[in-house]
Amino acid sequence: MSQPVHALFLVSAPDQPGLVARLASFFYAAGLNIVDASNHTDVHAEGGARFFMRLVVDLAGLSTPAASSALRGSATRGALEAAFGELATSLSAQWSVRYSDVVQRAAVLVTKDPACLYDIVLRQRSGELPCEIPLIISNHPTLEPVAESFRIPFVCLPVTPETKADQEKRVLELTAQHHIDLVILARYMQVLTSGFLDHAPPVINIHHGFLPAFQGARPYHQAHARGVKLIGATAHYATKDLDQGPIIEQDVARVTHAMGPDELTRVGRDVERVVLSRAVRAHLERRVIVEGRRTIVL
Amino acid sequence: MSQPVHALFLVSAPDQPGLVARLASFFYAAGLNIVDASNHTDVHAEGGARFFMRLVVDLAGLSTPAASSALRGSATRGALEAAFGELATSLSAQWSVRYSDVVQRAAVLVTKDPACLYDIVLRQRSGELPCEIPLIISNHPTLEPVAESFRIPFVCLPVTPETKADQEKRVLELTAQHHIDLVILARYMQVLTSGFLDHAPPVINIHHGFLPAFQGARPYHQAHARGVKLIGATAHYATKDLDQGPIIEQDVARVTHAMGPDELTRVGRDVERVVLSRAVRAHLERRVIVEGRRTIVL
Amino acid sequence: MSQPVHALFLVSAPDQPGLVARLASFFYAAGLNIVDASNHTDVHAEGGARFFMRLVVDLAGLSTPAASSALRGSATRGALEAAFGELATSLSAQWSVRYSDVVQRAAVLVTKDPACLYDIVLRQRSGELPCEIPLIISNHPTLEPVAESFRIPFVCLPVTPETKADQEKRVLELTAQHHIDLVILARYMQVLTSGFLDHAPPVINIHHGFLPAFQGARPYHQAHARGVKLIGATAHYATKDLDQGPIIEQDVARVTHAMGPDELTRVGRDVERVVLSRAVRAHLERRVIVEGRRTIVL
Amino acid sequence: MSQPVHALFLVSAPDQPGLVARLASFFYAAGLNIVDASNHTDVHAEGGARFFMRLVVDLAGLSTPAASSALRGSATRGALEAAFGELATSLSAQWSVRYSDVVQRAAVLVTKDPACLYDIVLRQRSGELPCEIPLIISNHPTLEPVAESFRIPFVCLPVTPETKADQEKRVLELTAQHHIDLVILARYMQVLTSGFLDHAPPVINIHHGFLPAFQGARPYHQAHARGVKLIGATAHYATKDLDQGPIIEQDVARVTHAMGPDELTRVGRDVERVVLSRAVRAHLERRVIVEGRRTIVL
Repeated sequence: MSQPVHALFLVSAPDQPGLVARLASFFYAAGLNIVDASNHTDVHAEGGARFFMRLVVDLAGLSTPAASSALRGSATRGALEAAFGELATSLSAQWSVRYSDVVQRAAVLVTKDPACLYDIVLRQRSGELPCEIPLIISNHPTLEPVAESFRIPFVCLPVTPETKADQEKRVLELTAQHHIDLVILARYMQVLTSGFLDHAPPVINIHHGFLPAFQGARPYHQAHARGVKLIGATAHYATKDLDQGPIIEQDVARVTHAMGPDELTRVGRDVERVVLSRAVRAHLERRVIVEGRRTIVL
Repeated sequence: MSQPVHALFLVSAPDQPGLVARLASFFYAAGLNIVDASNHTDVHAEGGARFFMRLVVDLAGLSTPAASSALRGSATRGALEAAFGELATSLSAQWSVRYSDVVQRAAVLVTKDPACLYDIVLRQRSGELPCEIPLIISNHPTLEPVAESFRIPFVCLPVTPETKADQEKRVLELTAQHHIDLVILARYMQVLTSGFLDHAPPVINIHHGFLPAFQGARPYHQAHARGVKLIGATAHYATKDLDQGPIIEQDVARVTHAMGPDELTRVGRDVERVVLSRAVRAHLERRVIVEGRRTIVL
Repeated sequence: MSQPVHALFLVSAPDQPGLVARLASFFYAAGLNIVDASNHTDVHAEGGARFFMRLVVDLAGLSTPAASSALRGSATRGALEAAFGELATSLSAQWSVRYSDVVQRAAVLVTKDPACLYDIVLRQRSGELPCEIPLIISNHPTLEPVAESFRIPFVCLPVTPETKADQEKRVLELTAQHHIDLVILARYMQVLTSGFLDHAPPVINIHHGFLPAFQGARPYHQAHARGVKLIGATAHYATKDLDQGPIIEQDVARVTHAMGPDELTRVGRDVERVVLSRAVRAHLERRVIVEGRRTIVL
Repeated sequence: MSQPVHALFLVSAPDQPGLVARLASFFYAAGLNIVDASNHTDVHAEGGARFFMRLVVDLAGLSTPAASSALRGSATRGALEAAFGELATSLSAQWSVRYSDVVQRAAVLVTKDPACLYDIVLRQRSGELPCEIPLIISNHPTLEPVAESFRIPFVCLPVTPETKADQEKRVLELTAQHHIDLVILARYMQVLTSGFLDHAPPVINIHHGFLPAFQGARPYHQAHARGVKLIGATAHYATKDLDQGPIIEQDVARVTHAMGPDELTRVGRDVERVVLSRAVRAHLERRVIVEGRRTIVL
């Protein structure tokens, strides 16, 4: 039996009566079954209450007469999108759609730390992260053997202050060439410029601190100096403001006075990996909507 | 400005296409705004996939012409329930509704431990638990002063093996007399018979162990003997099978070899209180549906 | 059977060979049994590695010939302290001692929030916090009935910018008069001046944020605006630098995008209470040593 | 600068006055510095209160005249052990010692799941697990390429009910041949006989459930059926009673009604890996003492 094919819709609109009914009825009228739905109304949003919804629709119904009739005789993905677009416009909604049979493609950017890279690749191989990883880029050659052991193309692009602009341009070219949908910074020890971020696909970064505490460099040393009793990690979308991007996921682990910076680093590494993978998975499953500086994770 | 009045619907039905659309459209057609909705489809349910939905509806629309027309001229709660009942029948759905302006009434059953009782009453007073507490029943006189300091009627009903049947009958009479909607066992050290449970309102119990581990008596001593590294607490609906009722909420705390049974009890007490209050709150907010031995918490 | 009487020693010294042996042998030679001991060497301390030790000694041996002979014929607490002081001097150590039969006295400072006050008093009553609470001070009359229900003297000292100096002076007089050993700020909504802190007993504050994130006012609103996925609370010694004092204990709870500031406040309140009580208990059990901006919790 | 060489002593004795003093003084007299020490007295132990201590001693002092004189002219590890053994006998103590320059050797037993194997090997490579891994044994050929990518010898020993005795004998031969100090069951899907366990080095197993709940097979399916709100993992020493061995480490993760058995498996896998690696590390650092059915983790 072949896997059912799903369309994943993400919708964001000014709150108004009947939103759930009108969105759900659209698919019902077209004979398309909603297999999963969740929504949230943020009454604290700037500019008034805002409605967010994630809908997972089984496309099996697209070949039925109901769909054909509802979509004016043309039961295609294009027709579905066109019809949904009309509804969205009438609701002043922003929306996007992805299809489960179009596998997303992620590039992993690394420097020298193998832990996060192994973790991401192994989770992808085990089916936990629904994507392909056709490209690993690093500013150091250290991790080439790891990439090779998984037979993933590895491109080494060293960077200096002078070559940074060129290097970022080259990264952009590679992501375009490989049709990359998502960039994962798996302990990539370079700050990305806003020039890069403006043209790149979404970028998820893992920060090894409990943001907004411990921004900037060497967060575990900061944490040790401050004597905190918990350390954390934060996965967020990279934005031009360093360590200020919308947070997707966070977690912490308990530490004691007896642990020096090295021990904090070791404990923190476990938190980082779990947090990053949860954030990447949520993104790939189309659960995350950015709203200002916050994320809605449906 | 007066608080808006809400109707909270809980629906459970065999999974079928168009459920969200039909439920949402029912309220939309009647001019009633859905202010919060969540649903879940349990594909592992016995007897086939089952759909669960919680809908919070603003009743302000009940006085509009749309409601009047949709409800056949009689825009009352009764008419709303009748019309919804028809829809539910057509979907083979089970359902219930409560209104936010009809405050639920909880009775607390205790023995000698003041911690859980204080916690429940203080949370109710602070607005965290949306209910009234018009009655405290105990099989010991110990906690009468606590009840008194909060001016809550306290009934002492001692129990022996010989008087158990009579005592339970008396508890049932009291809960009926006081129109009790929920019974909270806040460390009530008596097993309830199925005769009692068959006639009582829903009963939530806090078990001071991580069920299904450590069923029965003295779970912290069991936990100590087994040398576990975490201890927990479990809030569940009481059923005739002791410690087997559907679990509403659980949590744990980390412990070490250095802690004896007394210390485990102390640490556990904090977990118990938080877990019990979360479960009671979820129940009062109409978030919990029992499905076989499991709960859906929407 | 009467409870055994213990002496609790806290020692801090520059690291040097033989410290454990010399400290332990001191008590062994005096016939005094060590019932609990723990130590830590902070190799990252400023000014070189530093050794910390907590020793709990059974004073039953003080009436034996061994003690008498080791303490030069005078087996009193004074003689014990004098002899230990000589050893400490030879090790360049700082130290302090308390006796388990001298109950510590804590004053609770509050404003209007009853939750933390109830929690502290109930834990003290249940034996979880080894202290007396002979005094509650507030800048508002709101909580007087709570104090009264527990029969604890309540002093209302309102404060305005003009009267702040006088009010703090009055608080100091009261703590001196009542022989207060510890001041607990249980949601006391006033900043204490360094003039006050210089003359007061140790002061433990609960901050409703995960320090060093969210310093200052309205941390839950800050947390909501930043979109964090965990919120926390921090118990620390109050110092003249607001929210910068040495951290004794922290914890967090998971939150979601669906929770507004009110919900964060509610969830956070549970964390605050548990964190504050753990910190107060650790302090009362003489487990906490302040070392610069950090604490060692033995 | 070469790394200092440490001796790690673990001692267990009936509680008696002066234990800390006598143990610490032994090393002090021999000019050997104690760099880390921790102890615990279990007053609930069967057969009376029992004392446990872990001492980490810097062996640099072994070449000094003090050591030579204290150890009767022969400042060797053998002489140290002989002298300590005399002290231990006088205290009716059990004890063991290991040296930090004698690297322990662990064999990993696996079946088909790569996650735990990768995790163990990567942590060992990163220095987090202080051991060598000279041998991977499996009852299936699936993971040979993983072993190969890390250049670790891989032995495939298939097993059927008929060949079980022979296969276990072969595993014992291999562990003896490779001087294995610790066997790690990294999702090895075979029950080990007591015949095997009687002759094998210590064996640490990871059970994918929160023991003592969910013993036996398919714990995540059991957890789903019971509707628990947290799932866990337990690392324990393997004993002849399946899933009954002394627990070294446990942890949990929060789950919801929305997660089916597959999702529980995925979430649980993260917990398993962290729990297993913490347990293995504690064992390798000589922090774990087994006392009846419990462990003391110093």
